[in-house]
Amino acid sequence: MTRLRNQTGPPSRHLSEQIQSIDPLAEGNKGYALIKALYPICRSITGNGLRQSLRLLQDTVPLVLHEVPSGTEVFDWTVPKEWNIRDAYIKNEVGERVIDFQRSNLHVLNYSIPVRRKMALTELRSHLFTSPETPDWIPYRTSYYREAWGFCMTQRQLERMQEGEYEVCIDSTLEPGHLSYGEYRIQGATDDEVLISCHSCHPSLCNDNLSGMVMAARLARLLEAVSLRHSYRFLWAPGTIGSITWLALNEPVLSRIKHGVVLSCVNAEVDRAVEHVLRHSGHDFKMLEFTPYGYDERQYCSPGINLPVGSFMRTPNGCYAQYHTSADDLTFVTPSALGESLLLLLRIIQVLEENGCYMNLNPKCEPQLGRRGLYRQMGGVTHAAAREMAMLWILNLSDGEHDLLDIAFRSGIPFDQISQAAYLLREAGLLGPVLE
Amino acid sequence: MTRLRNQTGPPSRHLSEQIQSIDPLAEGNKGYALIKALYPICRSITGNGLRQSLRLLQDTVPLVLHEVPSGTEVFDWTVPKEWNIRDAYIKNEVGERVIDFQRSNLHVLNYSIPVRRKMALTELRSHLFTSPETPDWIPYRTSYYREAWGFCMTQRQLERMQEGEYEVCIDSTLEPGHLSYGEYRIQGATDDEVLISCHSCHPSLCNDNLSGMVMAARLARLLEAVSLRHSYRFLWAPGTIGSITWLALNEPVLSRIKHGVVLSCVNAEVDRAVEHVLRHSGHDFKMLEFTPYGYDERQYCSPGINLPVGSFMRTPNGCYAQYHTSADDLTFVTPSALGESLLLLLRIIQVLEENGCYMNLNPKCEPQLGRRGLYRQMGGVTHAAAREMAMLWILNLSDGEHDLLDIAFRSGIPFDQISQAAYLLREAGLLGPVLE
Amino acid sequence: MTRLRNQTGPPSRHLSEQIQSIDPLAEGNKGYALIKALYPICRSITGNGLRQSLRLLQDTVPLVLHEVPSGTEVFDWTVPKEWNIRDAYIKNEVGERVIDFQRSNLHVLNYSIPVRRKMALTELRSHLFTSPETPDWIPYRTSYYREAWGFCMTQRQLERMQEGEYEVCIDSTLEPGHLSYGEYRIQGATDDEVLISCHSCHPSLCNDNLSGMVMAARLARLLEAVSLRHSYRFLWAPGTIGSITWLALNEPVLSRIKHGVVLSCVNAEVDRAVEHVLRHSGHDFKMLEFTPYGYDERQYCSPGINLPVGSFMRTPNGCYAQYHTSADDLTFVTPSALGESLLLLLRIIQVLEENGCYMNLNPKCEPQLGRRGLYRQMGGVTHAAAREMAMLWILNLSDGEHDLLDIAFRSGIPFDQISQAAYLLREAGLLGPVLE
Repeated sequence: MTRLRNQTGPPSRHLSEQIQSIDPLAEGNKGYALIKALYPICRSITGNGLRQSLRLLQDTVPLVLHEVPSGTEVFDWTVPKEWNIRDAYIKNEVGERVIDFQRSNLHVLNYSIPVRRKMALTELRSHLFTSPETPDWIPYRTSYYREAWGFCMTQRQLERMQEGEYEVCIDSTLEPGHLSYGEYRIQGATDDEVLISCHSCHPSLCNDNLSGMVMAARLARLLEAVSLRHSYRFLWAPGTIGSITWLALNEPVLSRIKHGVVLSCVNAEVDRAVEHVLRHSGHDFKMLEFTPYGYDERQYCSPGINLPVGSFMRTPNGCYAQYHTSADDLTFVTPSALGESLLLLLRIIQVLEENGCYMNLNPKCEPQLGRRGLYRQMGGVTHAAAREMAMLWILNLSDGEHDLLDIAFRSGIPFDQISQAAYLLREAGLLGPVLE
Repeated sequence: MTRLRNQTGPPSRHLSEQIQSIDPLAEGNKGYALIKALYPICRSITGNGLRQSLRLLQDTVPLVLHEVPSGTEVFDWTVPKEWNIRDAYIKNEVGERVIDFQRSNLHVLNYSIPVRRKMALTELRSHLFTSPETPDWIPYRTSYYREAWGFCMTQRQLERMQEGEYEVCIDSTLEPGHLSYGEYRIQGATDDEVLISCHSCHPSLCNDNLSGMVMAARLARLLEAVSLRHSYRFLWAPGTIGSITWLALNEPVLSRIKHGVVLSCVNAEVDRAVEHVLRHSGHDFKMLEFTPYGYDERQYCSPGINLPVGSFMRTPNGCYAQYHTSADDLTFVTPSALGESLLLLLRIIQVLEENGCYMNLNPKCEPQLGRRGLYRQMGGVTHAAAREMAMLWILNLSDGEHDLLDIAFRSGIPFDQISQAAYLLREAGLLGPVLE
Repeated sequence: MTRLRNQTGPPSRHLSEQIQSIDPLAEGNKGYALIKALYPICRSITGNGLRQSLRLLQDTVPLVLHEVPSGTEVFDWTVPKEWNIRDAYIKNEVGERVIDFQRSNLHVLNYSIPVRRKMALTELRSHLFTSPETPDWIPYRTSYYREAWGFCMTQRQLERMQEGEYEVCIDSTLEPGHLSYGEYRIQGATDDEVLISCHSCHPSLCNDNLSGMVMAARLARLLEAVSLRHSYRFLWAPGTIGSITWLALNEPVLSRIKHGVVLSCVNAEVDRAVEHVLRHSGHDFKMLEFTPYGYDERQYCSPGINLPVGSFMRTPNGCYAQYHTSADDLTFVTPSALGESLLLLLRIIQVLEENGCYMNLNPKCEPQLGRRGLYRQMGGVTHAAAREMAMLWILNLSDGEHDLLDIAFRSGIPFDQISQAAYLLREAGLLGPVLE
């Protein structure tokens, strides 16, 4: 079910070198180009739009495409029928398309059953959805689990519609088929897994969810090229039903998942890793408490599954006006923000990769660092050099109870400095791993 | 020793309905009328004034009157002799009563032994008590455990007294008798008890303690009419010696007491219940840390007793100028404040009644609420409805470790909404009780 | 290895009486006089200057002088050769001493190997150290573990030196010898020890370290005269290598050390004791988190030693401009500050001596304090007297889980009032010790 990297041995490049060498803006530009290609496609929780999108991602990363039949029972849910759509419109009495799916796929209530009728505006109104507080934007609405049909439009469009008869057409199908999702796994030195998941079911919406889909693909491509301690599993799946389906089909795998990130938030050690990296990033940030109304972390963190999965978002869902409207378009995401987010994600992964718990092998008093070339020889100066401070903190706290991330938090020293100092101490034989 | 409700079966009315239907101001008016009737009576820790006051409360609630003989040993203490008083005064040389017990029973040092003498003002002074910083108010003073006599008066009264001889009379008795207290118990579905206690020994003082005595009686009357999970025990007893006496005589009962409120403060789960209700009440409030210098919670919470009893006060004792003076009179309490406090108490009791710890019976991913009619069918909207959020929080945290009150605190959702959502989830078979 | 007080029986004076009776300013004056006598001596981590300083302290307290041979292995370190110095200078071409060790012993890089050469300023420069940001102060520099030589001088002195040839002389020796340290132990009623340690290796620097050396000596003299529960061990030893040497030679003793103070900071119970005393002292203070870059607490608290040792400083090292420069001179310390610090230390020791965990022997309700003369007899007053409040807090919290220091923190009452109230309750038979 998963695909291994097509290479003879593991790559020898270190993640820290990879982080040093990437150009965030160049990465952001590549990501933006991919978002542009994906934007026009009408995705849903099943169907050809979703399938085609996953195939487009295969140019960046050779993900495996899974197809799960409609009717498959997944925990309390059932995989629904597959939905496809070719066209949809509302025509006025003179035959003009006043609402046209070809202009924006948001115009159709996602998962609308087929309809082809003439009806008066009075009757039609109960099938029309607008967002009156942002009258120039088309809202995004869905009806996956109750059969319905409808059109979304701007408030201004609605106001321009005059009484009279309209021709309504939704040329869709809702039939037994498959739910599609993409999966890509990088084998690391151990089978302990980091799960990186993003939902992939939204149609023409850029920040939510194209940025996540694309960043996950770029991240996978970068991680593929470096030696890793953990294995990494990437999932591109429709929201809710997709993660539930994957969880139901993969229960034996779950015990291997040590950390998870829904591309936005974070939990458990991941929480601490993300908080630490953000704190030293110079960006404003907020650690949001877990709430059960997020994305797929709702499923990963349900009490019977309980994976240490968080989410990572620049702006939380529902906290920006453009959320779930046509204004979340290609002007709402930028190459530079995409590149910065990618870099933050790499630094978070660096913490997951390099964190560990060590024992001070010379625990009685400080070892004489000076004769090992690890300490300045001139005494009396006011402040220790940063590297020396990092080493003293590590030696003092490495009693088997504190990992390097604990030490970074406690000391206020950035994780990468702590990690480098720990490397020097290990090389000098002063620090040894704690066997768990 | 306790009296059961005179009815055939338990009442079927729900507490939440009772809360919806009461008119706080009407309740406050009834309470105020009772305070007015009790105000003129000279209460003390024993005696006819206390006895008569408890009998007056019987019009509201059929409390049992207990009489414990003087000399009874109660832990480290002994029930004192019974004190009664008919009259007291200081007459000047022309026979005018310059201080007259008939005008205010606060004029006598409570528990004064009988005295009938003539003496010069110089000699009399050591028996006179005033409050110089509030020169128009009579202070309230007592001497229960050392035989003494004295008069309390305003500073202005003292200043008007000229040198010369005065006739002093305290027509009191201090003889073997009884200590009286009132008790009323409502049997609920279980024997787990909530203790609601108030001290009843203060003479003409309205906020401290008449408001507590009367609110306890009104509360008992309202609770009597609804179906309850806990049993409720109400105590009207003199401060310190009364609660000590009750505790000493009722040790076997103590293990049944799960929560307690001295009408003001709160502890243990009660603490959390009170804090939660106050937080959502729109009133300014302060959770005061327990201190050992309060009212009878000092006794209930002593280390060898250690009941989870808190206290509930609108204004803590000693934090208002009128405390323990004649200014704590009928103008210092209002029907509207009494009614509001009663409503807050009912809401606190609602939390105690409805709180519980449940298990999510469908713990792997979220259950599909939509097909059970518990979730909107239209997707894509920015914010979940309040009821849906409450259900998601409950499902996520109901792992047997968190009770509904925990979930209310964690989510920031008022307890009654959480409680209602939990009811719906139980009805849908998605939530089951944790057997303790 | 330790010296007992030369007396027949233990002193009967109480520490609290000692604290009442001392005159802080008189103590400060005695300390200041001793600092003045020690100031001109050139101390280092070994050598005659250190030895002579310890002998001078013997006038205040009969400390034992220990001599540990060069080459002794102490954990990861080796006791270095002994360094002594008679003279040092830089002469210009006309034979004037432009830098003269006789004017300030800070002018020589501490532990400089002998040198006697003529050299051009160009060549000499790499051996000259200044502090450009404080151009009138001589910095203090050392090179204990790498053989080197050098001169420290003010930036202005360096700027005045003209190009040309200079005669350089350091008349020092670095030869096998001894490391000296002083130790003094007061036997208390138990063998549980409090370790009070200060480093003694700095040359003409007053706040760091002469104030610590001298305060430790004055403190030892005051404690010697009172009855004590703990035994007290004082150490005057060179920084780092001195504490490491003492620890390596005294491992069997370590389990007896219950508290420790490096004259500045504090840990474990000591932490709480110091925080409490400072909070009630009226001084501004900061509890600094432990960092591994302090003084000898770095060694005492290393994970393989892990003693509960903190440090106590008025101003932390490195947080004042004068630190490790010639400006830390006799004008930088004052008798009044020395006296105040001594008093604070005594109060901290009082907490260590008097703290304890007790059981309320009358745990069911409050005992009747009034009939034991421990409670006012007049009731109704607004606020309890401070002593009564202290007794109520102690009775309520003395369940075997809270010691007196916990009760002082929880109640906000100064420790000495809690301690006195606990004494009264013990005398009345209401409080008994918890046997551990």
